[in-house]
Amino acid sequence: MPSDKNLRTLVLDTPNKIGQKVKICGWVDVRRDHGKLIFLDVRDRTGIVQAVINPKVSAEAHKTAQELRSEYVLEIQGKVNPRPENLINAKMATGTVEIEVADLKILVRAEALPFELDTALNIDTYLDNQPLALRSRKNQAIFRIQSAIAQSFRDFLSGQDFTEFQAPKIVAQAAEGGAEVFKVDYFDHKAYLAQSPQLYKQIMVGVFERVFTVTSVYRAEPHSTTRHLNEYVSLDMEMGFIKDHTDVMNVLNGWMTSLTKLLRKNNVSDLALLGMELPMVPKKIPMFKLKEAQKIIDKKYGTKATGLPDLDPEHERMICKYVQEKFNSEFAFITHYPTKKRPFYTYPDEDDPETTKSFDLLFRGVEITTGGQRINDYEQLLANIDKWGYRHENFSFYLEAFKYGMPPEGGCATGLERLTQKLVGVDNIKLATLFPRDMNRIDLSLGKLKL
Amino acid sequence: MPSDKNLRTLVLDTPNKIGQKVKICGWVDVRRDHGKLIFLDVRDRTGIVQAVINPKVSAEAHKTAQELRSEYVLEIQGKVNPRPENLINAKMATGTVEIEVADLKILVRAEALPFELDTALNIDTYLDNQPLALRSRKNQAIFRIQSAIAQSFRDFLSGQDFTEFQAPKIVAQAAEGGAEVFKVDYFDHKAYLAQSPQLYKQIMVGVFERVFTVTSVYRAEPHSTTRHLNEYVSLDMEMGFIKDHTDVMNVLNGWMTSLTKLLRKNNVSDLALLGMELPMVPKKIPMFKLKEAQKIIDKKYGTKATGLPDLDPEHERMICKYVQEKFNSEFAFITHYPTKKRPFYTYPDEDDPETTKSFDLLFRGVEITTGGQRINDYEQLLANIDKWGYRHENFSFYLEAFKYGMPPEGGCATGLERLTQKLVGVDNIKLATLFPRDMNRIDLSLGKLKL
Repeated sequence: MPSDKNLRTLVLDTPNKIGQKVKICGWVDVRRDHGKLIFLDVRDRTGIVQAVINPKVSAEAHKTAQELRSEYVLEIQGKVNPRPENLINAKMATGTVEIEVADLKILVRAEALPFELDTALNIDTYLDNQPLALRSRKNQAIFRIQSAIAQSFRDFLSGQDFTEFQAPKIVAQAAEGGAEVFKVDYFDHKAYLAQSPQLYKQIMVGVFERVFTVTSVYRAEPHSTTRHLNEYVSLDMEMGFIKDHTDVMNVLNGWMTSLTKLLRKNNVSDLALLGMELPMVPKKIPMFKLKEAQKIIDKKYGTKATGLPDLDPEHERMICKYVQEKFNSEFAFITHYPTKKRPFYTYPDEDDPETTKSFDLLFRGVEITTGGQRINDYEQLLANIDKWGYRHENFSFYLEAFKYGMPPEGGCATGLERLTQKLVGVDNIKLATLFPRDMNRIDLSLGKLKL
Repeated sequence: MPSDKNLRTLVLDTPNKIGQKVKICGWVDVRRDHGKLIFLDVRDRTGIVQAVINPKVSAEAHKTAQELRSEYVLEIQGKVNPRPENLINAKMATGTVEIEVADLKILVRAEALPFELDTALNIDTYLDNQPLALRSRKNQAIFRIQSAIAQSFRDFLSGQDFTEFQAPKIVAQAAEGGAEVFKVDYFDHKAYLAQSPQLYKQIMVGVFERVFTVTSVYRAEPHSTTRHLNEYVSLDMEMGFIKDHTDVMNVLNGWMTSLTKLLRKNNVSDLALLGMELPMVPKKIPMFKLKEAQKIIDKKYGTKATGLPDLDPEHERMICKYVQEKFNSEFAFITHYPTKKRPFYTYPDEDDPETTKSFDLLFRGVEITTGGQRINDYEQLLANIDKWGYRHENFSFYLEAFKYGMPPEGGCATGLERLTQKLVGVDNIKLATLFPRDMNRIDLSLGKLKL
């Protein structure tokens, strides 16, 4: 393959090269043989363009094109021509120009596809074939948006003077909360996969005041639902010198505003392709104490939520419905979850010590973020570890950060895949996850693999 | 604690507020009691400023200040005064202004420190006490630089049209290379921690052509050396439609240039504090085939490297010395490692099939990056899996990406901690790692924890 570094034209740039000869590299998305003329939709990372192979222009290219199938990798050279407006097939989205092929070279062959890209697949078929299925334009759009979410999280927080750090995933303690964890054979010891970077991000507040990390976290719960994953990506932040949990909520509110603004600006064609409606983010997302939210939905929808220590999934959907109707917001903050439902480090509300300065952010009916103020006083933290029935020595590393002066602080964690799922509007979180793991699957079905 | 969101002044901004009353929040870095006057160095995330507590200005603040120790968390209010130039202690680096304290509030107390921050510590004492020890200015600088390295990797590649993706860490296969791996109890199955995102990033080339990921990787080798970690962060990239491995090397060369430029611009005080000399990055980093490099050092330093399948650590140091003396470059590319020393997916050189289109990037005597062109032809890849004695079915998920058309592609992986170590100039990689894990340690010594 000759050097084409300075010669290759990306599909996105072809409309700017009308009348010029270009070289395009990419995959055959679709081939249509009209006898005399062969049409190819050629896909590269920037889009799809139609290529027309006319034997009168190149008999050789036309001969080579007989063999082509979807996913063949090609290098084509030809002239960029405008497409007659009445022939532009908007549905195919192959744009306003086409390439009149003068030269066609097969770089790599592909076997016959087991399914057409962009066909709706059964979830197991899809997951078994992700290396191929991810190439569909819809999946490209979903995971470009996922990438943009993580990037906007980093950019927004960096702009607010947060420092990124790398959190370890192998940990010595089973858990800081109630979640089940995976065990790792660690030389002669038992270790665990981190269920969150919580303890480390709090430690890092002592170092940089404001920190964030994008990190994989693990839950060994044996579920295979449409809203859970055993390995997922957590967008974690933590900040010192706060007044209370509302400072954290304000930063989160700001990020959501920034995220939707950026997607609206940078991902126009992805949004169009997915038919995505981006949410409007209120300047102040409506917030309700848990008890208030429960009262509201009991009254409005006849539920029996009041008195429960948490919102059921159904209650989350209802309060979101209420907030959307009443405040035109697809986001809602729920605060003041009971002490007993939150981890030991959660800050109790001085005015109502059975509740905490904690919050969840709900979006389109589900919790996407959980956070709050943390206990920063060393003695109070020790007392709470006692109260929870844990042993101080199991947390001695973490506790050192508090023994030597930790300012009032708090933070939150957002699930990347769940936020992606709710933004792009797919009904199973695995459709918003690259290479999801569940109790039956690591890439392929574990049963099939007989591991 | 009252809301101070709009009131807090960061230390960095104090020189712009001479004559004004400000509020500073931070930690007591050092307290010096001169009887009448008490001096504090107050540290926040942006720097250190001197605070002067004069009983004539505030008797109450002076009384409170009697109790202060290092790492107490404070809120102080007072006037910003210029410091007399002859009194500015350059070594303390507390700047050109001081705060005349009118009000002093203790936010959180700290116990007496077991050691002074910025004292040189025994490595085990340091690691046992990272939550405290990381607060030293030197460690802040090291990990700010580490954060900047990861950010520059992302920014540079995003600017070159690479898309970030999230790589899974739980994998079904023991290894794609020779490294030892950690086992995970995965429900009723055995799974493993990924030794690299290699197979996934290659799959993603089929989706986005150019991808990168910043991801934790795992090596279960029972070592406790100054240059190895059992969990480290890999900066991985992979790109399609390449001519050969040199396209990858060019992108890497470009990133190194961009990285050093950014650090020079954005991390001035970190560089000064660490006494760091940033390397000059040549427009074209000198490159040598392995055999050539071996001949050179055998001739120049009397080693017996020629014929060996790899460079020993000593050889890496020598070729770096040679390249620095001869070409004034602290970087050197070594290419064409033998087929048998590289993984099954490495592209053999057509002109010398016992060698590969692979490379290592050496910097200041050690390998920081490894990469190359990959085999993209499906049949050739199958044949190589056979040759290596692996089973096709163990790679069937990965192979699907090649069965359906993969362009010529390659990539590389850079160890974040090792690059940090060599840039900042610390002699143990654990000093450039947040929360390092080795066979004897997860946060604390495993022996002590009796896990």
